[in-house]
Amino acid sequence: MFESARRRSAATTIKGTGAADETPLPGKLVDDLQINLIGRKNIGREIYHQLLQAIQEGRLESGMRLPPTRELARRLKVARTTVAVAYDRLVGEGLLESRIGAGTFVKRGVVSATTDARNLDSPLVPKEAWVGFPTSYVRKLFAGRFEFDFRTGFPDDAAFPYARWRRLMARQMRASNAPSGYGDPAGHPGLRAAIARHISLSRGMQIDPEEVTVTNGAQQALDLIAKVLIEKGDRVVVEDPGYPPAWLLFRTVGARVEPIPVDDEGLVVRALPPDTRLVYVTPSHQFPIGVTMSLERRSSLLEWARQTNAAIVEDDYDGEFRFGNRPLESLRALDPNGHVIYVGSFSKATLPSLRIGFVISPNSLTSAIRAAKHLSDWYTMWAVQGALADFIEEGWFARHLRKMRREYEERHNAILAGLDKHFQSLLKVTNSAVGLHVCATATELSPSDLHRVVTSAKEVGVDELAQYSAGQPVPGLLFGYGAIPTERIDEGLRRLRKSFV
Amino acid sequence: MFESARRRSAATTIKGTGAADETPLPGKLVDDLQINLIGRKNIGREIYHQLLQAIQEGRLESGMRLPPTRELARRLKVARTTVAVAYDRLVGEGLLESRIGAGTFVKRGVVSATTDARNLDSPLVPKEAWVGFPTSYVRKLFAGRFEFDFRTGFPDDAAFPYARWRRLMARQMRASNAPSGYGDPAGHPGLRAAIARHISLSRGMQIDPEEVTVTNGAQQALDLIAKVLIEKGDRVVVEDPGYPPAWLLFRTVGARVEPIPVDDEGLVVRALPPDTRLVYVTPSHQFPIGVTMSLERRSSLLEWARQTNAAIVEDDYDGEFRFGNRPLESLRALDPNGHVIYVGSFSKATLPSLRIGFVISPNSLTSAIRAAKHLSDWYTMWAVQGALADFIEEGWFARHLRKMRREYEERHNAILAGLDKHFQSLLKVTNSAVGLHVCATATELSPSDLHRVVTSAKEVGVDELAQYSAGQPVPGLLFGYGAIPTERIDEGLRRLRKSFV
Repeated sequence: MFESARRRSAATTIKGTGAADETPLPGKLVDDLQINLIGRKNIGREIYHQLLQAIQEGRLESGMRLPPTRELARRLKVARTTVAVAYDRLVGEGLLESRIGAGTFVKRGVVSATTDARNLDSPLVPKEAWVGFPTSYVRKLFAGRFEFDFRTGFPDDAAFPYARWRRLMARQMRASNAPSGYGDPAGHPGLRAAIARHISLSRGMQIDPEEVTVTNGAQQALDLIAKVLIEKGDRVVVEDPGYPPAWLLFRTVGARVEPIPVDDEGLVVRALPPDTRLVYVTPSHQFPIGVTMSLERRSSLLEWARQTNAAIVEDDYDGEFRFGNRPLESLRALDPNGHVIYVGSFSKATLPSLRIGFVISPNSLTSAIRAAKHLSDWYTMWAVQGALADFIEEGWFARHLRKMRREYEERHNAILAGLDKHFQSLLKVTNSAVGLHVCATATELSPSDLHRVVTSAKEVGVDELAQYSAGQPVPGLLFGYGAIPTERIDEGLRRLRKSFV
Repeated sequence: MFESARRRSAATTIKGTGAADETPLPGKLVDDLQINLIGRKNIGREIYHQLLQAIQEGRLESGMRLPPTRELARRLKVARTTVAVAYDRLVGEGLLESRIGAGTFVKRGVVSATTDARNLDSPLVPKEAWVGFPTSYVRKLFAGRFEFDFRTGFPDDAAFPYARWRRLMARQMRASNAPSGYGDPAGHPGLRAAIARHISLSRGMQIDPEEVTVTNGAQQALDLIAKVLIEKGDRVVVEDPGYPPAWLLFRTVGARVEPIPVDDEGLVVRALPPDTRLVYVTPSHQFPIGVTMSLERRSSLLEWARQTNAAIVEDDYDGEFRFGNRPLESLRALDPNGHVIYVGSFSKATLPSLRIGFVISPNSLTSAIRAAKHLSDWYTMWAVQGALADFIEEGWFARHLRKMRREYEERHNAILAGLDKHFQSLLKVTNSAVGLHVCATATELSPSDLHRVVTSAKEVGVDELAQYSAGQPVPGLLFGYGAIPTERIDEGLRRLRKSFV
C-alpha cells in the first residue's frame, strides 16, 4: 500500500536535476497499487506483468497517474532503472504515456494487447540514456490539427507551390536521373552548389559547395556533429530556455548538458563554463524566447571559443524570414578561426516533410561529417535533392520566400496587435522581428496555471514556454504563425483569452 | 629524408589489426618528403601546411603515395593522430585520397584551393574514431557506370516502374496529404501496416505494425540499434568476410568489433566469444560469401544468445529474391525469447535512392528506437512513405517482384554458366540460390594480383572480396547482377577473363 498522494516536485525528466515546481501534478495519483515481489526471480519482468494485468483488468484506469519511477523503486526496494524499463515497455505498447513535467499516465482509449508473448519477455534493454525518455514530447508534435493553430515549428504548408514541386519531382523520378551507383554522402552536387550560392548571397558569406553536406533536416546535422565531436562526458552548453531536440540528442550521446541563461542580448556568455566541448546557439532568433544575439555578444562568444577551443554550432533555423532590420552578420561570417559549424534547414522555407537541411563545416571536420553521414544512412533521398536544386536554381524558391515573407509579416503584426488587444499586461511580448513565432511571458500565472488554461481551450493549439526550460520552468506561451492564417488570428487569441478567467 | 621505399604491410586501416599482405602497394612512394618541424608551435598545422604547399608546388605529384601515417609519425617523432588529422584535412579538400588496403595518394586531376583561409586554420578536430576513415571506400560506391557492371548493391533501376511511381508520389505531394503536424517517428501508419503484412506473409511470421519503425534504409536501422544498445567498449561480433558499413558504424560508436569466420553453414557459432553485446548476421544470404545459414546453425546461434543475453541483429538485405528452395525460417521467426532485431530494406526490391528500410524490434526496445529515430532526423520523408504504402497495397510491389525474380534468376544462371565457361577452375563459385550476387574465390591469384587484373579491365566493374575481409584478405570476386542485363553477362565475363593472362 502506498501513502496517499501529496504534492510532488515536477522534476524535469529531461535533465534529472530535480528542479521543483510547487504546483500539484494533474491526474489522480494511484495510491493503492499493489505489487508483490516476494520470491520472484525476474523483478523487472514481474513489475511489468503485474502493471500490465492491473491495466488490462481495469484496476488501473485510464488517466490515472502512476508513481514516479524513483518513488516506486524506493518502495519496492529495487533500482530505479528496473521500474523505468517496465514503464517503458508499457509505453512502447501504448498502455502508458509519459508527459514532460507531469508524470506517467495510464492511456485513455481502447488498448489491444496484440503483442506476441515472445516480445513481452525480451531481456534486451536499451542504454540508460533512453530509459524514461519523454515520448509524450514527441507525440505532442503530431497531435493533429487545431482550429486555431499557434504551434511553433510549422510553416504554412498549404501555401507551398505543390503543383510546381510535383513537376520538379517528376523530372527527377526517371531512370536517367538516378544517381550512378549510390549517391555521394555529401549530397547532390547541384543542391550543394545552390545552397552555397544562396547562403553566400543571403548571409553575406563566401561558401564553397565543398563545405556543404546535405542532411535530413537540421536535426540530422546536429546528430552528425555530435557523432563527430562529442565524447561521453564532454560538456555541452545549451541555451535555457532552449530547444529540447538538441539537448536531448546531446544527452543521449553521453554529453553533460549544461543550460546557460538567455537575456535580452542572447546567451549570457560571461556565464559560460570553461572546459566546454561545444555550445549550441540560435543567434538569429533565439529559440524559444526570440531575441537576436547582439553584435557585442557575438564577438564575446567568438572570443570565448577562441580561448577555450570550443566548437560553436550556429543553428539558423528560420533566418529566411526577417521583418525590418538588416540582419546581423552570422557567427560563421564573423568567425576568423574556424570555430563555427553552421546548420541550416529548408523545413520552414519549404516543407518539414521533405527533410532537407545542411551543415557548413570547417575543412578539418568535413571528411568526418561525410563519413558519419554515410554510416548513418548513406545519403539523403536523391530525387528530393535534385528537385530542390532545380526549385532554387529556377527561381521558384526565391518567389515562394518573397510571397511568404509578406504573408508572415502580416500575421506577425496581427499577432502583436491581438496580444495587445486581448491580453494587455497579462502577457509580455518579447520584442522580435524575425522568424515564425513570438514569445510572451506570463506576468500573473504559474506554468501549471498556464497549462490548465491552454488545455481547456481545446480548439486552440499553443506551445507552453515551460516545455523548453531546462531548469526552472518559465511561465509563458509561444505564438507561432506558420500554420494559422491572418484572418483567424484575432478570433484564436480571443478564444484563448476566454480560458484565462 | 626518408629511406627508399620497401615492401610495406597493408595494415587494414579499418581495424588497425596490422594484418599483413606481402605484396607491394601500388603507386610510387614518396621517399624524399621533407617536413621541417624545428621550432614550430602547432605541429599538426605545420605538417598540413607543408604538405599542402608541396602539392600545390608540384613537388608531390598526382598519383604519388604518401608514407603511412604511422611511418611518418615515427620519423617526425609525433603522434600518429597528428599526422592522420593533417592527411584528413587534405582528403577533405580533395587533394589526397585514401584507399583501403593501398594507402594515401596525391589525387589526380586539377585541384583548386578555393577554401577560405579561415577554415584551413580551424582547430576543431574530429574524434579519434573518424581520423583516417577510408573515404575511398565511399567513393568507390559512386564511381559512375561501367559498360559491364557486376558491382553488388544495385538492383536494376532501369526496370523500376517509374511512371507508376511518379503517379503515386504525385498523389502524396498535396496539401491534403501532408502529415498533420510533424510525422510520427515510427513512420507512416499505412506503410508500417503494409510492411507488417508483407513480412508476415513472405517470412511466415506474425508481425504487428506496432513493432515496425520505418528508417532511411537498413543502414539507419543499424545506426538506431547501435545508439540504443551499444556502450563504448562493448563487444560486437561481425561475420568475416562481412559488410563494412556495419562494422565501421559499430567501430565509430566505440564498440570493440570482433570478426568471426564464416563457413559453408554460415557464421561459426562455436567460435563466438562470451561477453558479447550484439552479433550482426546476414543469414538468408551471407554477405559477401553467399551461403545460407543452416537451420542447425540458426538454432545454435539462438541458444548461444539465450545463454549470453546477447542481441542478434538479423539483416535480411535481399531476401526477396530466392531461386529454388523454400526459404528457411528467419532467426526472428525461430526466436522464442526476444533476442532478435530484424532489419529489412526496400533498396534492392525497389530503388536504393528512395532510402526506405525498417526495423522490427522486441517491445522492450521499441520506445527507445522511436526516440532515437526522432532525435536522429525526426522521421523519414513522408511522401515517399505514403507512396510506398500505396505501391505495396495496390499490388504494384508484388508485380514488380515477380517480374524481377524471373529476370534476376535468368541473370543468375547466365553468370554461373559464364563463370564456368570462361574461368573454369580459376574461380570457384560458392553455391547460392538467393539474392543479387554470387561470390567466387580465386584459386591461383593473390588479392593484389586480382586487384591489378580488375583495375586493368576498365570497362568491367566488379567488387573484390578482399575489401570485405576484416582480417586476412581472401582472394575472390563478387559478381552482382542487379545492374547488368542478361545479354551483356557473357561478354563482360569474357573481357574480364582477358585481363587475367
